[in-house]
Amino acid sequence: MSGPDAAFSPAFEDWAHRHWARMEEVLGRMLPAPDISPMRLHQAMRYAVLGGGKRIRPLLAFAAGELADAHPERVEVVACAVELIHTYSLVHDDLPCMDDDVLRRGKPTVHVEFDEATALLVGDGLHSLAFQLLAQYPLADDPHRQLEMVALLAVAAGSRGMVGGQAIDLASVGRQLTLPELESMHVHKTGALIRASVMLGALCGRLAEADVARLDHFAKFIGLAFQVVDDVLDAEASTATLGKTAGKDARQNKPTYVSLLGLNEARRLAQEMREDAIAALEPFGDRARRLKEIADFIVLRRF
Amino acid sequence: MSGPDAAFSPAFEDWAHRHWARMEEVLGRMLPAPDISPMRLHQAMRYAVLGGGKRIRPLLAFAAGELADAHPERVEVVACAVELIHTYSLVHDDLPCMDDDVLRRGKPTVHVEFDEATALLVGDGLHSLAFQLLAQYPLADDPHRQLEMVALLAVAAGSRGMVGGQAIDLASVGRQLTLPELESMHVHKTGALIRASVMLGALCGRLAEADVARLDHFAKFIGLAFQVVDDVLDAEASTATLGKTAGKDARQNKPTYVSLLGLNEARRLAQEMREDAIAALEPFGDRARRLKEIADFIVLRRF
Repeated sequence: MSGPDAAFSPAFEDWAHRHWARMEEVLGRMLPAPDISPMRLHQAMRYAVLGGGKRIRPLLAFAAGELADAHPERVEVVACAVELIHTYSLVHDDLPCMDDDVLRRGKPTVHVEFDEATALLVGDGLHSLAFQLLAQYPLADDPHRQLEMVALLAVAAGSRGMVGGQAIDLASVGRQLTLPELESMHVHKTGALIRASVMLGALCGRLAEADVARLDHFAKFIGLAFQVVDDVLDAEASTATLGKTAGKDARQNKPTYVSLLGLNEARRLAQEMREDAIAALEPFGDRARRLKEIADFIVLRRF
Repeated sequence: MSGPDAAFSPAFEDWAHRHWARMEEVLGRMLPAPDISPMRLHQAMRYAVLGGGKRIRPLLAFAAGELADAHPERVEVVACAVELIHTYSLVHDDLPCMDDDVLRRGKPTVHVEFDEATALLVGDGLHSLAFQLLAQYPLADDPHRQLEMVALLAVAAGSRGMVGGQAIDLASVGRQLTLPELESMHVHKTGALIRASVMLGALCGRLAEADVARLDHFAKFIGLAFQVVDDVLDAEASTATLGKTAGKDARQNKPTYVSLLGLNEARRLAQEMREDAIAALEPFGDRARRLKEIADFIVLRRF
């Protein structure tokens, strides 16, 4: 797994590395063992999830959980659940009938390494597993709260959240979108799950309603910044650095922030969104340190 | 929607028709409206779910709920959830990378009527929606019980349940399976969700643990009987009667009860499983009337 750039504080680097290692361990434990039947399916699920990815959503969940004084063992479970939902969406998104991508997280995509039918089932299996974890482990003192958390993830993942964003994305190929249309697509496609990651981490602990609204505001901006940076990196980076096929969106004639605004203006927009995100955290003072550092990490990353 | 044969009692026919109509109404209400964005996705989700299907799983949930004195408004929600999971699995199963089927419930399959990418997202959207419903509506007096119900559905749907069964199915194409291997495949592929339908319906109400175990026993046998009958119908029926492509399993060289046992022996096995299922209900007396009638319906149906 690649680490953050030298630009980040040693304390954040240390925190991020500890949580990456922790996620790898927890995900490895939560996924069905590779020798449990059906073995090929379980091996493919582990292949899809383990040993790669920036784990932005788990990091956000952990940082929001710290802010809300949540038990780390609880946050661990929601961090797994959001990462499983994210990974299932990548596996399905990479299929030939969608983006038809052969490289992901520096490795052959699941349908290339295994086969298409297995990749379809891997996504479906990870999807169910995410909800199984959220329901099976104690996450909140009040079980009604925990049911709300399950519903929150389901809405964020569903047809009016992430899956809806992918449908909008499909419909936009080859079309000229306006900036608000592009933003609406990303608010659903990546923004919904990023917001859910922050919310679920915070809901494992205790936070006043106004503070939850502030975090949601932060999450909305950081979700958008994440996507703008993704478009910038896709436009300028080589495939080797990115760990996935670079320059693909432009070739597929997909609208991106770069195609709409140009490279420099897109970079400026990402910075502006980062500032808006960090401004939303102001009332928390130093307690929001990790979330601010993740905002920097998202905008300044090179992969 | 086709009705049951004349062989069933008028009271059961009436009950089944009322619950079919009720399911159509509730599913129509629970699914996102066709004019909500993304419209094409939501229209395709409604196309996949509404206006077809035997709704065996909802009927089982309602009948088990009646036995357990559950509020019908609660059972309605779990009936929707299991039907959404079942439908998502059909939509994904029909995709070209899986069974590559063009006809389902008497209509063109979703990827034929819309396109492959939309069908993939329809399945994913229905999958999330099922968990959203289970978490969002009050289903049990004790919210801990409701969390257990969410986990139960997730396990039944996941890689050690339904999705696992599909993986075993994939791996079995062109292989000669033994009867126990074939049974293990179906215990996962269709049995897990049928058992979950009975369990979830019952868990909406009150039932002693020993009674829940009896119901589970019934559900296991009836799930297997359902599959045996499916194989028999596939072997003998025409596509028009069946509403899906007939004779396909044999052509794809998939192992079936008929290919393994022959038509007559498979019919005998279905009857035997029906008797085992009904025997498990004996202690309930007349309270289990509907479940017994569904067992008859499953084994004696012609579609």
